[in-house]
Amino acid sequence: MGRQFDTISFLSDLGVVDEHVGVVKSVVRDMAPHVQVIDLTHHIAPYDVRAGSLALARAVTYLPSGVVLALVDVGDRRPVAVEVAGGKGVLLGPDNGLLASAVAMVGGAERAVVLDREEFHLVSPGGTLASRDVFAPVAAHLCNGTDLEELGTIVDAATILPGVVPLARDFSGVGSTDEGIGVHAEVLWIDHLGNCQLNIGLDDVAPWGVAEGTLLQVTAGDQTRSVLRVSSAAALGPGAIGVLVDGSGLLTLVLDRRSAADELSLAAADQVTVQPGTESGNGAVSVPINLRR
Amino acid sequence: MGRQFDTISFLSDLGVVDEHVGVVKSVVRDMAPHVQVIDLTHHIAPYDVRAGSLALARAVTYLPSGVVLALVDVGDRRPVAVEVAGGKGVLLGPDNGLLASAVAMVGGAERAVVLDREEFHLVSPGGTLASRDVFAPVAAHLCNGTDLEELGTIVDAATILPGVVPLARDFSGVGSTDEGIGVHAEVLWIDHLGNCQLNIGLDDVAPWGVAEGTLLQVTAGDQTRSVLRVSSAAALGPGAIGVLVDGSGLLTLVLDRRSAADELSLAAADQVTVQPGTESGNGAVSVPINLRR
Amino acid sequence: MGRQFDTISFLSDLGVVDEHVGVVKSVVRDMAPHVQVIDLTHHIAPYDVRAGSLALARAVTYLPSGVVLALVDVGDRRPVAVEVAGGKGVLLGPDNGLLASAVAMVGGAERAVVLDREEFHLVSPGGTLASRDVFAPVAAHLCNGTDLEELGTIVDAATILPGVVPLARDFSGVGSTDEGIGVHAEVLWIDHLGNCQLNIGLDDVAPWGVAEGTLLQVTAGDQTRSVLRVSSAAALGPGAIGVLVDGSGLLTLVLDRRSAADELSLAAADQVTVQPGTESGNGAVSVPINLRR
Repeated sequence: MGRQFDTISFLSDLGVVDEHVGVVKSVVRDMAPHVQVIDLTHHIAPYDVRAGSLALARAVTYLPSGVVLALVDVGDRRPVAVEVAGGKGVLLGPDNGLLASAVAMVGGAERAVVLDREEFHLVSPGGTLASRDVFAPVAAHLCNGTDLEELGTIVDAATILPGVVPLARDFSGVGSTDEGIGVHAEVLWIDHLGNCQLNIGLDDVAPWGVAEGTLLQVTAGDQTRSVLRVSSAAALGPGAIGVLVDGSGLLTLVLDRRSAADELSLAAADQVTVQPGTESGNGAVSVPINLRR
Repeated sequence: MGRQFDTISFLSDLGVVDEHVGVVKSVVRDMAPHVQVIDLTHHIAPYDVRAGSLALARAVTYLPSGVVLALVDVGDRRPVAVEVAGGKGVLLGPDNGLLASAVAMVGGAERAVVLDREEFHLVSPGGTLASRDVFAPVAAHLCNGTDLEELGTIVDAATILPGVVPLARDFSGVGSTDEGIGVHAEVLWIDHLGNCQLNIGLDDVAPWGVAEGTLLQVTAGDQTRSVLRVSSAAALGPGAIGVLVDGSGLLTLVLDRRSAADELSLAAADQVTVQPGTESGNGAVSVPINLRR
Repeated sequence: MGRQFDTISFLSDLGVVDEHVGVVKSVVRDMAPHVQVIDLTHHIAPYDVRAGSLALARAVTYLPSGVVLALVDVGDRRPVAVEVAGGKGVLLGPDNGLLASAVAMVGGAERAVVLDREEFHLVSPGGTLASRDVFAPVAAHLCNGTDLEELGTIVDAATILPGVVPLARDFSGVGSTDEGIGVHAEVLWIDHLGNCQLNIGLDDVAPWGVAEGTLLQVTAGDQTRSVLRVSSAAALGPGAIGVLVDGSGLLTLVLDRRSAADELSLAAADQVTVQPGTESGNGAVSVPINLRR
């Protein structure tokens, strides 16, 4: 017998209008009644592996020891389990890159298994519904102490599809250039308030000096706007755009009680360019800006 | 004392914007703290007894032993409880047909009670809110071991309003006909991906031969389209419509990563006609098709 | 050690699309695994302290003993904790008036604390995310028996920002008037069915005689409509508007299976005027009506 778990953290693109999420929980409740299922979100857009991967990576260091069930764009991808953190956690999901960032965040894969032992799955009255017939019973078995290697075939973790984490690109000092200094970045996530999380940490822009009150220039689509480095959106005047370091340590574009995504017409995965602004804060743009989209 | 339960499975049209679902859970937590409430869905469209009944029927065989609380279009219908499966489950809901299909799925009603004992209800500061004042405390009392017959007046289960389950209708060999062979069916459910579940099992079309790779003809509204029998939407080319056997054993119209409901302009309860297609798969329609809507 | 709790009731404007609510629950699960978190709603509109306050006040008397976590428009408001009911409950939230109505409903504040002891908070990799870094760990510590006074600095409860509860205003007998008798009221809440809860109890209109079957006149915007006092929307004919006493004891405008808010073009916080109607119920309006908006 392996380690027993009492928590399953559950993220998916299943939505909550259909009964699928409830049925997964019912199967778990029936097979492993000691387990609590914690919903991270079920509102990842259908098929959006990128968004699911990012949400999971933001959350993973806060999850309790246990099973992490991540079901985005399951389709007919092979179901896999990845053990991490000395066996304190097992991530379950389709082999489509969804788990990769989260696994990396907690130290990388230790054992990986393809969940191909059908005796641990449910028999469907029709086609296989992977969430209900494969992942739910496997999660319950893991919580009951069944060892990972009983549930499937061990594979080299390197054969599990890696995720694609967009990297910011510094273009400072790239020979002779009309771009000046700055970073090409990407909108990782737009939250329910319209705040736009970028794939830039404070370190990426620290060389320019970005203390609170500093101005930066942000180019998104055909707009270039001055944004003020703040610690809270509440510090901004009406209509002013700010940039703060969010709870994940990433630069995030914000307005006070309004949507930065609406103001800047930004969507997830859009490209933006961030450059140092004028120190005077008078709105004049002294650095040439290029449109990158 | 009757049997004690530790799980309540909860389906409703209450939504999650108002606090009603949370208050039901709070009442249960206060009265029966050992109980877990599992949400199946609270997004059944208001008043849509048909949809609630179908979702409950799809889920019911997966629910753990316990109480099933189903609240759709409660209005001022009398509240009833139906015991099933040798006492392993009790379904609670309004007497409006909502419970019927699920009860049938698990072997039929054993005892039925109208929940008319007000000493087991909460006293409201205003009008009675049935979810909070009647169903929540009755569910908690059941979980605590109060026998069904203490909670209300036993009635003949035949007096509980039956559900209306739409049946597919085979029109093969109906005398001389320009319809040929086929089945008139109905869209039961459109899931969050836009997949359209029909009220046809594989048996209904088996006589035609519907192995994977076979073509069928589906008429919906004024469109007739060839659909390919597949085991997974991922097997379809861009724009191609497929039909698979879903996790409930029913034929379901699908596209790969797109909404079949949008493609075919289908809504729940719409009529469709399914007929054998040409074996050549060349797109020519050799069987006369009638529009049935 | 203080009293231990095993339930956290959770209401917020965080939505369920982002992972924030799930992360709060994960932090609690990790720190206080014996605790159940009950979601009241996470769909309070962002920043809508008024709506959050009203939903919390409607629910609070039904909540089990424990911690109440209410996070609406947290921004950079100071986080506070308010003990109520002889220590049977502690409400946590931002100091922006959100908690006031609920605290009043359960007997008023006993101890109040500003949550300024950072040793009980989580260290963020970036900016502080109050829900995750302050409120979640503090709620868990409270459930584990840490006394309120260890978690922050005691303050006079009178320094906590009060809520604004809209009062209905009786204008009967206000000298010579062309208004006649009646009440100026406000729409407190529009539920998911479109029912419009007003800030008027039955007592406020009792002097006029409002037995079931009585007609009242309701003026909303530029419309004046006769509404029938009923005990259930099901008693109304198609298109007829009714008023009933809802589960909170407040007058609520309803239609049968349709939205009163749509019919009357009402939104939350809109003003309406309620006056006695003609006893004959013939639709003639014998009382002069003024538009108040």
